[in-house]
This record gives sequence, structure tokens and C-alpha cells, in this order.
Amino acid sequence: MSVIAGVDIGGTKTKIGVFSDKLISTVIDTPKDEQRLVDVIAKALRDLAENIDAIGVGVPGAVDTFGRVSYMPNLGFRDFDIVSPLSQKLGARTVVINDANAAALAECQSGGFTDAVMLTLGTGVGGGVVLGGKILEGVYGKAAELGHIIIDVDGRQCGCGNRGCLESYASASALIRRAKEEMAKNEQSLLWKLCASLAHVDGAAVFEAAKQGDVSAKSVLSEYIRYLSIGVVNVCNIFRPQAVIIGGGISNQGEDLLAPLRAECERLNYGYVGAHKPILLAARLGALSGLYGAIAFAKSKLSEA
Amino acid sequence: MSVIAGVDIGGTKTKIGVFSDKLISTVIDTPKDEQRLVDVIAKALRDLAENIDAIGVGVPGAVDTFGRVSYMPNLGFRDFDIVSPLSQKLGARTVVINDANAAALAECQSGGFTDAVMLTLGTGVGGGVVLGGKILEGVYGKAAELGHIIIDVDGRQCGCGNRGCLESYASASALIRRAKEEMAKNEQSLLWKLCASLAHVDGAAVFEAAKQGDVSAKSVLSEYIRYLSIGVVNVCNIFRPQAVIIGGGISNQGEDLLAPLRAECERLNYGYVGAHKPILLAARLGALSGLYGAIAFAKSKLSEA
Repeated sequence: MSVIAGVDIGGTKTKIGVFSDKLISTVIDTPKDEQRLVDVIAKALRDLAENIDAIGVGVPGAVDTFGRVSYMPNLGFRDFDIVSPLSQKLGARTVVINDANAAALAECQSGGFTDAVMLTLGTGVGGGVVLGGKILEGVYGKAAELGHIIIDVDGRQCGCGNRGCLESYASASALIRRAKEEMAKNEQSLLWKLCASLAHVDGAAVFEAAKQGDVSAKSVLSEYIRYLSIGVVNVCNIFRPQAVIIGGGISNQGEDLLAPLRAECERLNYGYVGAHKPILLAARLGALSGLYGAIAFAKSKLSEA
Repeated sequence: MSVIAGVDIGGTKTKIGVFSDKLISTVIDTPKDEQRLVDVIAKALRDLAENIDAIGVGVPGAVDTFGRVSYMPNLGFRDFDIVSPLSQKLGARTVVINDANAAALAECQSGGFTDAVMLTLGTGVGGGVVLGGKILEGVYGKAAELGHIIIDVDGRQCGCGNRGCLESYASASALIRRAKEEMAKNEQSLLWKLCASLAHVDGAAVFEAAKQGDVSAKSVLSEYIRYLSIGVVNVCNIFRPQAVIIGGGISNQGEDLLAPLRAECERLNYGYVGAHKPILLAARLGALSGLYGAIAFAKSKLSEA
């Protein structure tokens, strides 16, 4: 049986695991230095297993065709080659995958789907697309940047430089920003009671306030779900997948998010009258999806080779 | 050598061809009756070749997983099974493909690309996506409905029932409709001279009037190219392809369309700073792309089997 390692590099923590018949994993602080990052990952992997056949590394950034990480915004790394040093140090084939893609692959396999799209709602909106069981990588990498599909010409300014990108409306950050704007307008909003200060506003508070009938929260949330439904309907028209999987912290709201989202997507006919309606569900693997996905990706590449 | 037949069913004309070492083809009027359509296609194919190994049929409509045409709006056919009767009559494996997908496959192969997206600008905006040399069909069919990506929340009403779809802005029909609106506002517009009446306005006239400096035409065209660029940038972020191919009658404008379109896409960084810039080109196979694509699709399915 092959021994496959996975690494899920995050801005603050990095998860490292080895899978043969079961998963053994560990978590380390992410060093802010490229060389040191490679060293601690190699050490952790050696501690977990003697012989590793393949390593999948999930990174919060853009991955190019040659498996180089062209940009990791949270860590400031550019043109970072993690493949050569790790494969040399451990004598194992090493492949790199964007973390949103890794999560999509893991959730898709876990759900028993061959074709699914995952939208991860966090600081941005991460996209991952699985077609016929394989990640859509793009011939030069960097495909499935679904958060940067423009849904509103002349809309809100996005961090990418363009305007009206999905992530400016459907990220957790966008929800929180809009909630703060409404709080500023309405001193009576329950959000002021639920959150100690503006700095403490989070997605869960908006859902809770809306559930308790707060007008500001309800308005922000209904606007949010409307924009998110446009994102879902767009990926349906583009990929017509079996499932659309919603990930990120906000997906912990479960049916409080999914029920109104489904209603809105129904209103838009999931893009097209008569087209197949995908299963709309929340991610199930939680914080380990990136690690599972990195392992699944390495495994798939090993079987292709 | 296999003998592969292709059929490209259009609203008024149907092209039929057989390819072994070279293409022999014919054109017939499209019967408005399902049974009659099958009969004339079968007869035409028998006249062209004695033994056919596979048949690819391109249709202007939605194709489901089982190769049934679920809806052909121009002909009014619904749940039309063209596969069973044709395969029985000719003893050849028969497959069905959406005509925009067929065109994309043919143009992609002709351009030497493995990964490309084609946008066909006509009455609507047809989408076709080729990934790793294969058409993106969608697990249930009906994928790549790129004309129905919503680019403007609360935007123009689209025929599909939703609002703000790309095709409401970037189809040839949308260009013509906007030109007529501007003509109504401006009696001095050169468009009045170039077109005998409102009924004669076409895309070529808008380009010609703009070239001659007409203010109304220039304004309509620059708005049109701006919206089209959003469509191009969106498919870049989604697929990050080698090429984006523009088809349909408007693509005959060549560099008059492509040069300003490239400039606008550059301004939007083709979606993402540092991402690979695709080749942006006009379709080259003209009216035969659907037929070539139907043949290429049948050939690919035969080699899979």
C-alpha cells in the first residue's frame, strides 16, 4: 500500500499528515520564511513515516503549471518552489495544489460526486471545480478563480483590482462589512448587543441577530444570500455539476444558510428552466478538508504517473 | 480508415457531411417535423457514403446525458430522440452535441489548442469549452451555458427568465437593439444613412458607422466591447484557457473587434494580475465549424468506446 503525505499550509497553522491505512497528522505553526517552512515540513513528515511515496501540498495561493507557487498573499511568498526541496529531502514525488481546489476534491470524494463545484466563503471566495473526478487546474494553473467572476459591472471594488467580483459580495468579509455599515446606520440593531464592538462582528452574529428578528441583520443577510445565489447559479450554468458545496466558516450555519439559498436559486431556476438542479450542501470535512484534499491530489497524480 | 459522418442542424438549413480522407458534404432545408428531419438526414447520409462508422449530430439546443435533445427553441422540438432512429437506420453509433460546443471543438482543434473557450455571438451568446482536448459536456449535459453567466445583478431582462445574463449585452442581437435605441435618440446618426430602415440595422453597419466617426455608433460599440470583455475575463478566471475564440457573424469584423476587445481585457488584466493571458482570436472555420465539430465529436467518442 502506498504511503501518501499531505500538507495544508495556512497563514498561521500548517497541517501535516500521512495516510496509508489511516491518517496520522500533526499541526505546526507556519514559519514566515520559505527555507524554514520547507525544513519544518520535511522534519514533521520524517517523524510521521519512514517511507513516503508521494506528497501533496495545499497552499493558500496561486499555483502555476510547473507546480511552483507563484504567489501566496498571506505569507508574502512569490515564485516559491516547494516541490524541488521537498521531493529531494524525502525522495517522494511532490505536487502542489491550491487549497480551495484541495478542499473541493476532498469534499467531492467524501460526498460521492464525480462532478462538483465548491465555493469557500472566507476572507475571499475560493473556488474549486472537480470534473470527472479530477480537479480543474487550468492548462497553466490558476483556473477556478470563481470568486473573481464579475457579477456586477461597475460594482464594488475588489482586491484583485477589478469591480463587481463575486467575492466582494459573497465572502464572509463582505457579509461582515455590510453588517457594520448597517449597524452604523441603526443604533437599535441587535447586532450591537450581540457583538461587544464593531471589531467583534462576525458571520455567526449576523445569522443570530436575523434569527431573532433584527431588521438590519435580516436585510444584510437577505442581500448576501441573493448575491451568493447568483454565484451558485453562474457555476450551475457553467459546469452543470451534480453538487454545489458551500464551505468556509459561514457554512457552519447549515440550513439557516442553505434553505434560503436554495429558495433563491430555485427562483432563478438554477440558471435555466429544465436544467438539472444540483444538490446544494454544506462542506462536511471541516478544517481537515484541505489536508484530505492534498492527499487525494497526490494519490491521483501517483496513479496517473 | 473510419468513415465519420457529421450533421449540423440549423433553424433553416442543415449541413450534412461524411469524412474519411476528405470531407464530402451537402446542405438541405431543415424540415420542421421531427420524423421528416430524421428521414432526410438518413437519406442524405446514405447518398454520401455506403458504410458509416459513427455519426455526430450538432443541434441548436440543449442536449441531455442520454443524447436526447431536450429542447430546440428554433424548431420547437422537445425531448427529441434523434440518436435511436439514426443509429438504427444507418447501423452507426450516433452521438449528439450542442452546436456551440461542436463549433468550439472544431475551432480548438484547428487552432492547435487543447484548452480553449469559444463564445459565439449571434441571436444569443453560445458557449463551448474544450478542456484537455475534450468538450465540457456537464455530467447531465447542458454545461457551458456561458451566455447565461449573470454579469449584472438587476441588469437587462434575458430570454432565459433571469436578469443581467452576458447574452443580453454581448449577443449580436443586443448590439443591434442598442444601436436602434441610439438611432431613435439621434436623427443625425450615420446609421440612418447606412441602413435603409431600422429593420436593416446589423452588426456590420454599427462597426462601419463607428469607423466613420459616428458618435452614436462609437458609443454603442464601446459599451458592447466593454460588456464582452467582462465575458472574456470571466471565462479566463474560470478556465484559464490557452485561447478564447470569438465566433458568430460579428467575429468577421476581425481586428476592428479584437483590437479594442484585447485592450479592454488588458485593462482588466484578463482577470488577475500575473495570470496567463490567453490568445484572443476570431473563429476561422466559418459556417462549416459546426459540421467539422460534429464529426470531431463523433470521432472522439468512437475512440473512447
